[in-house]
Amino acid sequence: MAGNTIGTLFKVTTFGESHGKALGAIVDGCPPGLTLTEDYIQEELDKRRPGKAKGETPRKEKDRVEILSGVFEGLTTGTPIALIIYNVDPQSSAYEPLREVFRPGHADFTYFMKYGLRDHRGGGRASGRETVARVAAGAVAKRVLQEYHVEVYSYTINLGGVEAKERDLGFVEKNHLFCPDPTVYERMLAKIEEAGKAGDTLGGIVEILVKNLPAGLGEPVFDKLSADLAKALCSVGAVKGLEIGAGFKVAQMKGSENNDPICAQGFLKNDAGGLLGGISTGQDLILRVAVKPIPSHRLLQKTVNLRKEEVEIQVGGRHDLSAIPRIVPVLSAMTRIVLADHLLRQLAILAFRARLPFPDFFKG
Amino acid sequence: MAGNTIGTLFKVTTFGESHGKALGAIVDGCPPGLTLTEDYIQEELDKRRPGKAKGETPRKEKDRVEILSGVFEGLTTGTPIALIIYNVDPQSSAYEPLREVFRPGHADFTYFMKYGLRDHRGGGRASGRETVARVAAGAVAKRVLQEYHVEVYSYTINLGGVEAKERDLGFVEKNHLFCPDPTVYERMLAKIEEAGKAGDTLGGIVEILVKNLPAGLGEPVFDKLSADLAKALCSVGAVKGLEIGAGFKVAQMKGSENNDPICAQGFLKNDAGGLLGGISTGQDLILRVAVKPIPSHRLLQKTVNLRKEEVEIQVGGRHDLSAIPRIVPVLSAMTRIVLADHLLRQLAILAFRARLPFPDFFKG
Amino acid sequence: MAGNTIGTLFKVTTFGESHGKALGAIVDGCPPGLTLTEDYIQEELDKRRPGKAKGETPRKEKDRVEILSGVFEGLTTGTPIALIIYNVDPQSSAYEPLREVFRPGHADFTYFMKYGLRDHRGGGRASGRETVARVAAGAVAKRVLQEYHVEVYSYTINLGGVEAKERDLGFVEKNHLFCPDPTVYERMLAKIEEAGKAGDTLGGIVEILVKNLPAGLGEPVFDKLSADLAKALCSVGAVKGLEIGAGFKVAQMKGSENNDPICAQGFLKNDAGGLLGGISTGQDLILRVAVKPIPSHRLLQKTVNLRKEEVEIQVGGRHDLSAIPRIVPVLSAMTRIVLADHLLRQLAILAFRARLPFPDFFKG
Amino acid sequence: MAGNTIGTLFKVTTFGESHGKALGAIVDGCPPGLTLTEDYIQEELDKRRPGKAKGETPRKEKDRVEILSGVFEGLTTGTPIALIIYNVDPQSSAYEPLREVFRPGHADFTYFMKYGLRDHRGGGRASGRETVARVAAGAVAKRVLQEYHVEVYSYTINLGGVEAKERDLGFVEKNHLFCPDPTVYERMLAKIEEAGKAGDTLGGIVEILVKNLPAGLGEPVFDKLSADLAKALCSVGAVKGLEIGAGFKVAQMKGSENNDPICAQGFLKNDAGGLLGGISTGQDLILRVAVKPIPSHRLLQKTVNLRKEEVEIQVGGRHDLSAIPRIVPVLSAMTRIVLADHLLRQLAILAFRARLPFPDFFKG
Repeated sequence: MAGNTIGTLFKVTTFGESHGKALGAIVDGCPPGLTLTEDYIQEELDKRRPGKAKGETPRKEKDRVEILSGVFEGLTTGTPIALIIYNVDPQSSAYEPLREVFRPGHADFTYFMKYGLRDHRGGGRASGRETVARVAAGAVAKRVLQEYHVEVYSYTINLGGVEAKERDLGFVEKNHLFCPDPTVYERMLAKIEEAGKAGDTLGGIVEILVKNLPAGLGEPVFDKLSADLAKALCSVGAVKGLEIGAGFKVAQMKGSENNDPICAQGFLKNDAGGLLGGISTGQDLILRVAVKPIPSHRLLQKTVNLRKEEVEIQVGGRHDLSAIPRIVPVLSAMTRIVLADHLLRQLAILAFRARLPFPDFFKG
Repeated sequence: MAGNTIGTLFKVTTFGESHGKALGAIVDGCPPGLTLTEDYIQEELDKRRPGKAKGETPRKEKDRVEILSGVFEGLTTGTPIALIIYNVDPQSSAYEPLREVFRPGHADFTYFMKYGLRDHRGGGRASGRETVARVAAGAVAKRVLQEYHVEVYSYTINLGGVEAKERDLGFVEKNHLFCPDPTVYERMLAKIEEAGKAGDTLGGIVEILVKNLPAGLGEPVFDKLSADLAKALCSVGAVKGLEIGAGFKVAQMKGSENNDPICAQGFLKNDAGGLLGGISTGQDLILRVAVKPIPSHRLLQKTVNLRKEEVEIQVGGRHDLSAIPRIVPVLSAMTRIVLADHLLRQLAILAFRARLPFPDFFKG
Repeated sequence: MAGNTIGTLFKVTTFGESHGKALGAIVDGCPPGLTLTEDYIQEELDKRRPGKAKGETPRKEKDRVEILSGVFEGLTTGTPIALIIYNVDPQSSAYEPLREVFRPGHADFTYFMKYGLRDHRGGGRASGRETVARVAAGAVAKRVLQEYHVEVYSYTINLGGVEAKERDLGFVEKNHLFCPDPTVYERMLAKIEEAGKAGDTLGGIVEILVKNLPAGLGEPVFDKLSADLAKALCSVGAVKGLEIGAGFKVAQMKGSENNDPICAQGFLKNDAGGLLGGISTGQDLILRVAVKPIPSHRLLQKTVNLRKEEVEIQVGGRHDLSAIPRIVPVLSAMTRIVLADHLLRQLAILAFRARLPFPDFFKG
Repeated sequence: MAGNTIGTLFKVTTFGESHGKALGAIVDGCPPGLTLTEDYIQEELDKRRPGKAKGETPRKEKDRVEILSGVFEGLTTGTPIALIIYNVDPQSSAYEPLREVFRPGHADFTYFMKYGLRDHRGGGRASGRETVARVAAGAVAKRVLQEYHVEVYSYTINLGGVEAKERDLGFVEKNHLFCPDPTVYERMLAKIEEAGKAGDTLGGIVEILVKNLPAGLGEPVFDKLSADLAKALCSVGAVKGLEIGAGFKVAQMKGSENNDPICAQGFLKNDAGGLLGGISTGQDLILRVAVKPIPSHRLLQKTVNLRKEEVEIQVGGRHDLSAIPRIVPVLSAMTRIVLADHLLRQLAILAFRARLPFPDFFKG
């Protein structure tokens, strides 16, 4: 049943299928009085558009976001902000042969088992296209965080096994792979081209870095910031792993190595990834997610159809060769949605601690 | 603010501090008519008790769970099941020297930043002891899942770098480290002893395996089963990483390798870890979490106190040498809580699809 | 912060302002496999349209609902159903003089105090127009309830003091006031005309009757069906009172009068209004709500502006003379939304009690 | 399924049955740093104790609340506050004859239909005794509201038809009926005695008055303060009606009468009951609830048993003659729980509007 809403004070609900009429998000709980424009949101959406690969003619971008509510004369009003992106020309006929077949690695089978029927066109609700609504909502969260100077960066640190060593944030936005390491960028590109020629697809790892996050965000014990980030990031289709700070390396660390000592100026290192007891320390937040290779490749695959007959399929159509780079802005968006929510939750505590007064119109 | 409740239909709320009067859980949404005893719950609690290490005299176990409500004449009634475990003899005085000092690797600093004050005794709410309430609640979830033959196993596949290769489930419950590999068990023990002698602590990796899970559990798009499991597992104190199925290995896999082909008898392998589109496939569920070394070791640590003065501390008292094995039953418990919730959520869909009739007392 | 979502398994989120671009609802948790068309939803919307009064030329209806997602080839898919109604030609300039003035009886003042700014055009989010999204969502709930033959009727039993004695359900849909009593209908109409001539507006009482509701809906103790209905109905703008069954008459009843005796064929009367302990008994559900007169009348009113200056205003424009009859389908809609949610919640219990099996594709 | 939790930021979960081991509440989200003692909570509990009637020897009060967590050295810590009240000597044998019989006016039948079984002793979870946990939780909410000088008063304005005209708040706490009118108090007492002699029970009406409530509490559109109060109050067992401000009188009021004009000093009257658009205006909040007569009277009643056989029963044991006065502190408690929650929700908005800074330990 219902599972398309996330957040407590800053709450996001999304809708839409890959080949339906439209996708969108309702952002409920955005504070009032913030400037917000369609252009501001569009800028985030444009980061996830395809067709920016080297040597390629950029396709004319068709995803246009529209604000339907919650903004008045350029300012947020505190009421729900509805964002809509119409699907233009979805070309569903390419999916007709797949109507009764379960594509391996896709949600075709699970949706069928869950619901007894499914929208087979482009993966329906389970399509990567669903994330366009997340990115739109994440742009509103970005606007909220901006007031507190919280900055979220995501970048590709591993693509098909090619690893980035450097973290040059300036370079990240200059290359369409969101690669932070100028010295490996070309190798990543080559890796993708190679996969493309073989008709195959690639996985990778994306790192998320948050700067200027205040200390104190996250709640004991289930709504830890770590837990809510884990949920938000693992709710993105292709994610199969998550690390916080030192991540899986902690398995081989001693307590004396793993603990981050503290001095009068702050923490002396950051293996914790900015979270202690699931609550932000004020250090940089550092997360990493593993992204599986896109299941729609061009090679022959064994599967079954609705009548349990074994068939071989070859998924046609134009598909990305990796969920990276398009997933990168999605991961930033999900991170921001969680942070905006927890920032507001902690503000309620701080406001009470400060006995922040309520305005009184008549006495004021 | 409020963050100590998890779940939608099967909802768990916990309370309690390490050195407070009691810890406990309210399990709301357990179906009626199930046999449930304190012994059944106690059995799970006993799995997380300390003092079972080789050559050690088992300490007299003091954690006794009591059922306060929701069970009548041995059967669950459908109303909230309150479970309480009183703290016996917490010996808080050992923590007096730490009253104004932030222990590195602990939540002392973050709780202080969040709330402006904290219960310094044994970590308060952020103590590993908090998990006793999770295990108690998880036992109720286990009872629910039992009716559908869903089985959850957790075991230690890496302890301080010593890796288990085999997965001998029969062996798991026979050794107190929950090690699934008889051939490395002694090496794990030796590793712990070595750390103990050095005054240090160890991290590790725990794998979670779920058998007989029906297909169709999990909701698009935020309440994916994967996402809710990620939240539940990452809400456990020491967890710093999570993998589903092939996990971080997907970064180096091709789509043609990673996809699990399907034949008339089922899936031909399980790199997906039992989840497609975040919904269960009916295959085994496979998850892994990275557990950081316990931050309370006996070596000198640099830190600061409330007045920002730099101090060196040595954390005294009796502490475990690794969160493993005690975290193992906790991870099973959290997994079961999420699965019970999603099983009930999917039952609502299946019941509607079947137009399951409502009983009519007077006409029936 | 976020407050525009209602429901647990059947969850409705709405958005939109009176003079914004569009209003709409996301219905998340509608079971799959139900036929659902825009015409079906439109039929409900048409019940709340204005301009059907006696002797009046019906205005060309402009509110058209569009389904954006969640329906595929005519059937619900289980994923969120997005419904949108574009605002056509809102004529906001009429509200320009009210930009800095708080209209008495409206939410102008409270929105300003809450948010520090407000969309003054037509009441913004606080307009009665917001209810169009509720009615659209309620139509989906109606479709769900239809499968279990649950029928919801709402009708006007008091308009400006004119009381209906009879409950002729057949007559209700035949007159645009939703009056259930043919003998008072003309008097109600006369009362409205009289108010209109005086430039004033009328309140009233609406009764809600639910037939064929199964027993067992509602949860202890906060999510009682009575409590959730109270919330849903009192969340409708003009509602200032609520009664269940005998309602306020219970204050003067003895226990021996108020209790409904039970015989082998069922309950012998229904002062409880179909709810005992907040859970449905299987009898008819009977609720009544008090609807305040529309605050936008044409007489002079004393108020203040943003600068606390006292001013006299006369609210112009075309306004209804009573929230009745337009609120009647809104109340049905809210009732249905709550009932659909609780029906699904109870189905989860019944399914578990019956150990409803999960389908197994490969073994099945 | 789960329905025993209420609130968003200030969240209350309760448990316990009439004749179980204990009842209690978890209050999650109480701000840190507040003094809180068992005596403070006990004071509220004592207001709902029985045996204070005129001429009666007060029974030794046995309900003692204990704080199990969330308070450290006398101050709230921000973590869940667990409150427990053990049942002492419940004497369940008196209910043995009712094991298989549905008492009219009680939840016996509905719990049986919902769950297929029930705890028949004293009504189980559906007993009025369940409210002891609400009152305990409400005391914590009172402590929160106290910091903002918000005051909640509840008093009996109608008992068995005897109406209070005056509102003497000083008198309210001086008489055990919580009657606000010294001139009718004796008549109310006489009415109760008369009912007692006849073996019958009485209903009544309770008014709730809130002073010093800030403007701006409540959220559009479903989480209106009015809606959340309606839910909270209608979740109390015997409540069958609710009024806000003028309540059902609005049915006969004109818009020109009902609207509250505004002048530079404030509102000129308060028919709105302190709520416009469901958001608090800063005026007094005024609510009224109708309380049904206690269904356990001593006269013969027709009913059926589990085998659908018609039987006549006479409910024995010692029962109150009216839910009033014991329900009065319960209604205050529920009101406070909702207000504390919405106060914190609005503080998050105000804090953001003020860009309330986060503390920085190392730079601060």
